[in-house]
Amino acid sequence: MLIHSTTVAPEWVDYNGHLRDAYYLLIFSHATDALMDAMGLDAAGRAASGHSLFTLECHLNFLHEVKVDTRLEVWARLLALDAKRLQLHFGLYREGDTELLAASEQLLLHVDLAGPKSAPFAPAVYDWLATQLAAQQGEPWPEHVGRVIGLPPARK
Amino acid sequence: MLIHSTTVAPEWVDYNGHLRDAYYLLIFSHATDALMDAMGLDAAGRAASGHSLFTLECHLNFLHEVKVDTRLEVWARLLALDAKRLQLHFGLYREGDTELLAASEQLLLHVDLAGPKSAPFAPAVYDWLATQLAAQQGEPWPEHVGRVIGLPPARK
Repeated sequence: MLIHSTTVAPEWVDYNGHLRDAYYLLIFSHATDALMDAMGLDAAGRAASGHSLFTLECHLNFLHEVKVDTRLEVWARLLALDAKRLQLHFGLYREGDTELLAASEQLLLHVDLAGPKSAPFAPAVYDWLATQLAAQQGEPWPEHVGRVIGLPPARK
Repeated sequence: MLIHSTTVAPEWVDYNGHLRDAYYLLIFSHATDALMDAMGLDAAGRAASGHSLFTLECHLNFLHEVKVDTRLEVWARLLALDAKRLQLHFGLYREGDTELLAASEQLLLHVDLAGPKSAPFAPAVYDWLATQLAAQQGEPWPEHVGRVIGLPPARK
């Protein structure tokens, strides 16, 4: 699902004139915010429940350079869910384009901010996530999932 | 090796009052800049050679929350090297402390900016990296290397 749209800001670009690695993750982090809004963990939901999501772990593949002022879209794919955790994939694209610019796999933990300590999703949030997950279940998993970093064998 | 020190800026903190995930990576990205300076790919070296490093892929583990104004240190460990690629590990710590706050494994590609296309490290840069790698060779690899994201089996 299309979850976030943005434009590359001048302060996100490095000395090469390209989006700096950390700002790809900032765009994905804003996509996580948008997903939290959609699941009922927006500012009002967080204030009412005392719940939030923390990122436990993420993986990023940088596939293409992105220049300032480029219009971008983030598409989200839910991969797996348990009582407290959500695994998902984000893909970054130019607006209206199909070429994958970057991918991120993420593991998010549902927390009770009073601890903070891990806590089960509220039923309404869990049901929303389970419905989204079921709707995407038939499609193959994206390419950049389950990745391990390593140097490939030297080429001759 | 200690490669970078910084202080958590107010604009890096999210609605939970904690360092946002993307800004952990920004700190590691600044650590990569510092490592590039050390290997001779500082601004002058880039201008003279037309060479730079691009991040191909990275993995992040977020282990502890970090609050605004905290003084932080990044320690770098080189893991592997070939003619064009460098695999490394960064650990984030509070200044003078030994508790690991976050870890990142990264795969960096040496590029000729004229393409941009991948290109072998210049001999002086390669030799510096190989010397650093050899000096750290005896130590065991850090825990957060070679990670695959996945949901653990459900607990009862």
